[in-house]
Parts: sequence; C-alpha cells; structure tokens
Amino acid sequence: MESKIVTFTSDFGLKDPYVAEMKAAFLGICPSAVLVDVTHDVEKFNVREGAFMLASAAPYFPRGTIHLAVIDPSVGSQRRPIIIETKHSLFVGPDNGLLMLAAETQGITRSFEITSRRLMLSHVSRTFHGRDIFAPAAAHLANGTPLEEFGPQITDVFKPQFAKVTRTHDLLVGEVLHVDDFGNIITNIHGKEIEAFRDSLVQVELSARKEPMKVSNTYSDVKLFDPMVVVGSHNYAEIALNQGNAALKFQVKAGDKITLMKI
Amino acid sequence: MESKIVTFTSDFGLKDPYVAEMKAAFLGICPSAVLVDVTHDVEKFNVREGAFMLASAAPYFPRGTIHLAVIDPSVGSQRRPIIIETKHSLFVGPDNGLLMLAAETQGITRSFEITSRRLMLSHVSRTFHGRDIFAPAAAHLANGTPLEEFGPQITDVFKPQFAKVTRTHDLLVGEVLHVDDFGNIITNIHGKEIEAFRDSLVQVELSARKEPMKVSNTYSDVKLFDPMVVVGSHNYAEIALNQGNAALKFQVKAGDKITLMKI
Amino acid sequence: MESKIVTFTSDFGLKDPYVAEMKAAFLGICPSAVLVDVTHDVEKFNVREGAFMLASAAPYFPRGTIHLAVIDPSVGSQRRPIIIETKHSLFVGPDNGLLMLAAETQGITRSFEITSRRLMLSHVSRTFHGRDIFAPAAAHLANGTPLEEFGPQITDVFKPQFAKVTRTHDLLVGEVLHVDDFGNIITNIHGKEIEAFRDSLVQVELSARKEPMKVSNTYSDVKLFDPMVVVGSHNYAEIALNQGNAALKFQVKAGDKITLMKI
Repeated sequence: MESKIVTFTSDFGLKDPYVAEMKAAFLGICPSAVLVDVTHDVEKFNVREGAFMLASAAPYFPRGTIHLAVIDPSVGSQRRPIIIETKHSLFVGPDNGLLMLAAETQGITRSFEITSRRLMLSHVSRTFHGRDIFAPAAAHLANGTPLEEFGPQITDVFKPQFAKVTRTHDLLVGEVLHVDDFGNIITNIHGKEIEAFRDSLVQVELSARKEPMKVSNTYSDVKLFDPMVVVGSHNYAEIALNQGNAALKFQVKAGDKITLMKI
Repeated sequence: MESKIVTFTSDFGLKDPYVAEMKAAFLGICPSAVLVDVTHDVEKFNVREGAFMLASAAPYFPRGTIHLAVIDPSVGSQRRPIIIETKHSLFVGPDNGLLMLAAETQGITRSFEITSRRLMLSHVSRTFHGRDIFAPAAAHLANGTPLEEFGPQITDVFKPQFAKVTRTHDLLVGEVLHVDDFGNIITNIHGKEIEAFRDSLVQVELSARKEPMKVSNTYSDVKLFDPMVVVGSHNYAEIALNQGNAALKFQVKAGDKITLMKI
Repeated sequence: MESKIVTFTSDFGLKDPYVAEMKAAFLGICPSAVLVDVTHDVEKFNVREGAFMLASAAPYFPRGTIHLAVIDPSVGSQRRPIIIETKHSLFVGPDNGLLMLAAETQGITRSFEITSRRLMLSHVSRTFHGRDIFAPAAAHLANGTPLEEFGPQITDVFKPQFAKVTRTHDLLVGEVLHVDDFGNIITNIHGKEIEAFRDSLVQVELSARKEPMKVSNTYSDVKLFDPMVVVGSHNYAEIALNQGNAALKFQVKAGDKITLMKI
C-alpha cells in the first residue's frame, strides 16, 4: 500500500519546535506518510496570504493528498475545526476561510466539523490545535478513518470575500495578492485577462507611480533590471524585474491596488 | 517493518548544506527512515535553548524515535559523543547538556560514549561531528545495532544546572526560557504553579516594567493587542499579546528575570 | 524495492510555495521517494554559490541519488534543461554550470538534453521549469525511465571557469567561495595546500587587513573569539573565530581575494 502524502502550511516559522510537534502528533498515529511542507512562513495571522499559498500549491499534488493548514488567530475560541472533502483532496484546519480558496477550485463534496475527542490528542491545549486536533485528524484520515466519525456534517463553512478584479474597456483594476521572495509582485489579475496585451506595452499604476511596461513571456524578455508584466507560474499577472526585486523598487505590499491600462 | 522516525535539531541554519550532509551520512547507512527536523535555527552555540527546543518536541514523538541533536561549540575537543537511552527514545549528540533536559523527563535507562571508529564515517573531520559521528551513530541505531557496540557504558553524563522557580507566598520568580517566533515570552514557570490565579489579575514584572495582566485560557481571551499570562502548549506560563508581539513590547530575551505577584 | 533518494537545491527560499510545488510535481509521478533539501537559500541567481552548495553535499549521499538543482536566471530562454549521469549519481537542472562542479568530481559518463514533452507536466509555464520540467524529469528518472528517452545525448555541457589558487613559494592566493551561517569564511584553497603550515602561524591578508593566524585543527584550538585558519569539513581552508563570526569581523563576501603567507 502506498504512503499517503500530507502537506503542512502554517504561520509558525521554522525557528520553534511547533512544526515538529505537529508532525510528531501525526506520526504517533500514522507513522509512515510522506510529509511535505508547503510553507511555514506565512505572515503571522494572515489568513488570506495562507489561503493563497495553499491554493497555489494544492493543484500540483496528486489525488488523495491530505492538506493540513493552520493559520489560526482565534485558536481556543468558538471557531470550528473542520475537514473539507473535495473531488481531489482532503483539507483540515480552522473554519476561518484558510482552506476555501484551494478547496472551492477542486469542487467541494462534503464538509465536517471535528468534534470527536477520541480522534484528538488525549490532552487538548487551548493554544495549539495544530498539534492537538488538526494533526491527529489528518493522521486518522491518512489511516482511512471515515469522515462521518470526526463529527457532524456541516453546510455553512465560512467563505471569505476576496477582492475581485474590475474591468472597464481597457482598464483593469486589481490587487496585490502576495510579494514573493524574489520580490515579484503577484496580483489577482488572471492571465487570460491580459492575453490581448501580450507583447504590447501597458501603463501600470502602483503605489502612486505610473510606468509603461512590456507584457512579457518570461523574465529574460526585457533588459536586465527592467520592469515587466508577466503571467507567472500560477497564471496570475505579476510585476517583476529581470533578475531584480520589483517589490523593493515599487514599495508595495499585499492588499495594495494595481491598475493596468492599454496604451 | 516500519521505518524508524529520526529527528534533527541543530544551530546550523538552513542556508548551508550542513543539515543535508548529516541526512546524507544517515541515509548512506540507513536509507529508509522518516526524517523530521525539530529546528536548525537554535541561536548559534546556545546549548540551553537547544535543550529547551528538543525537550518541547520530544514528548510528542512515538516510542522508539531517535533524536539527533548537535549544538556543539566544543566540537573536536575532549567533550564526548554520547547516546542516552530512555524508557521512550534514544538521544544522540555531544555530552554538553543538550540532551539531558529531554532525556531526564523520559527516565534514563543507560548511557554510552561513542568510541567505535567502524560506526563513524571513514574520514572523521575535526569540525563536523554531526555529519561524521552523530548521524552515522543514529543510522546504526535505526538499523538495530546494539548500544554496547558503540563504546563503553558511562554514568557521568554532564548535567546542566538550569534556573529553578522560587515561590514566596503569592510571589513567583522565574526566568525567560525562550522567545518564540510569534514574540510569545515563554518562562520556566510551570502551568500548575499559576493554576490558582486562573482568570484573575496578576502583577507581572519584566524588564523593569510592572503591568497587571489577566491569567487567560487562550490568546483571544483578552482584547486585541492586550497582554496576558497564558499557560502555553508546553504547560509553561507565557506572556503574550492577542495577535501581537510581546517580546517587542517588553524588550526581553532568554535568561531575563520575571516575577508574578497575586494582586 | 528501496525508495530512491532525491535532493533539492534552489534559490527559491522557503517562504513561498515554490519548493512544495516542485515536490508535488515530483510526487505526482513518483509517490514514494525520500526527499531531502540541500538548501533553498542560495543567493538569488547566484549559480556559483549554488554549485558550491551542491558540490559540498553530493559526495555524502549514497550511490544512485538523484540531485535536482534549480538556480535559473535564464528560465524560459534558450538555455537547455539537462541530465548529467556520473559514476555515482544523476543530476537534473539547467545547463548553466550549476551541476558541473559536483558532477565533474564524480566522473561524468553521459549527458542528455531534456526535450521529450511527454516527460514534462502537461502545461509547461515560461517561468517555472523547476516544477514543470526538472521535477518531472527527476521523478521519471526515479521510476527508472532510461536516459535516452528524455532527449538527445549531448557533449557540450556548459562548463564554468572558476578561479584557481596560485602558489608562489610560500604565498598562496585564493578566493572566498562562501560565507556560511556561522560567519566562517570558506576559501577555494584546498586543505592539502596548507598541510605544511599545520600548527604554525601564517600571515592572512583579507579585505585590506593583514593578520597573523594559527593554522588550527579545530575551532576550539584558539582562545574564545580569536581568528584562525582551519581546514573545514569539506577540506577547504576557512577563516573562522572560536565561537565568533569571522565574516562580520573581516567584512568579506564571496569572490573576495585572500592571501596566505608563511611567516
């Protein structure tokens, strides 16, 4: 029998033993899965950024993968621990929107609240449900425990409202989703929205600056350190510099507004 | 046969290939274990912080786990490489106190010095025993090599003196053990010491500041950015802010004194 | 059958989901390998540093290991995706010199360009060949796909020119290869070049400073915070301080010149 693949996403960082404790709790119940870190460096408490990270990576994992994600500013309060089943995967985490962006694109089939105490660690802390509730749930799922045993089926999973792109003639208004470690500025504007501009110049407005940029096919299509619009590897428009850091140049952060106008 | 679980703890950081070299040396001898990183971002040469990290994570790993830990400022000198066997696990690392905090709470059964050259890499450097001695030892342990083959049994493992909590009536004096990546200030005051204060206010003195704080059950029990005393996930009292960074606010570091007084 | 060992080296950092996406693409094709990170914190676009990291770690991995490395400033341009077979391992990555330092020391047997579309992801982006081309290639290699199926055999793999050490009587002139996370300054001067100076003093010139240093056997051979020359764990001469940070003291960076003179 093949090992299950289980992914981990959190805002815990890698300095502390918290990620290891989640994996320990998991391995104590299911000792032989393939464990893969998506990231543990989501900005603290930034559920939206975590949702974006998970939604970026999840489509590439094989069918049957279990995704555990914990960005959980309300741990220990009334927010529910949940499992979402899709046509492709299982998602385990807090009911605060973190899982929905990834789950919805895969087609949600059923959702459950986790209430069964026998499927948690014997002592459940008030501050670390990643270790005490979510990791054990993921491990029992990997062992084949049926979804119905975790708790009641639910139909009111929290669904966050993320900003939408607006389009008026040749003007696109979107938002910065994430600044990556290369300094590439990833927006919520889908690649197909700018298909018509391919290889043309567009006027980009960002952080109160306006600059014409080429809509390029890859980073090396423009001169060294020149800015460009490029459709990144997740099919969203990015502002990038060829071998440079666009976020440093434009001083942007997640949530900033961006407009693209055909010249 | 199930794969062995082996954990890695060090102050090597993740930028350099050192952690990979330890794992390579391990896998060359035992090619199929489940390898889990506890952390590699212990402050350089800070044996006490490493001991705390390992002691935090070790209890959650299943029986039979092998813990490899290397914070080793005296590598290449006379400090001994050792193996400690407990009722629950095996610990491999330098004899400088790093392993003892975790091992003692599990009940130590036997300890051994590692002296057998045939259980090390064929070339042993003077500067990297993690790769050349400790990882091979952990791999041979995972393969089932009996403890007696590594070297002589010893009874004088180095035992560090860590600060104790003192209690006078309603005054508790302890010490900051660790500041985590969220900025939570973790102290050496055990949860049961403050059980009587639960849901009350206490006067906290820290970094020459005095502030009354609620002894809360979880982070979201107080208003956003308000400070609190909370029993963290390892059963030690923490000073934390609700979705904020307590260490930035109070400017503390590991080793600082903290007092709690009932109001 | 034993699981294949596959290593990952990149400049992607661990904050973004990119490393997870590579592993996802890999596991979708080969679901049961042992995945080991060499490092993902190579300086962005620094092919030479990545080559050094990979060449440091590769010799310690067992025969048959597959090494995937992606530092790829020219992704999407004409640079070729390649596989290099050595007497010991397989290397997968861009044809920009990244793989050669490690591969050459193992004895190269054959090299191939990756051109077969059916051995890539079904959609190949212009900006992320690590996920879309290299990880699938490594997975197919792990599954036993013969090298000939990936594309044409090639004999003109790009070979970077790295600086050589020059020696005149008692003067050695070399270069800083890498500054590690401890601040140790690793040079390209091989240990055997300074064998004759062992336990003597040498005059070290670095960043326009001259200082006599002992050629030591290990870090604790000199007084706390004193500088030394020591043959590091990869058999290259390092400048280090006992429990201190030599790179901070001498303000050096990769590429700087260093001279050692017998006193």
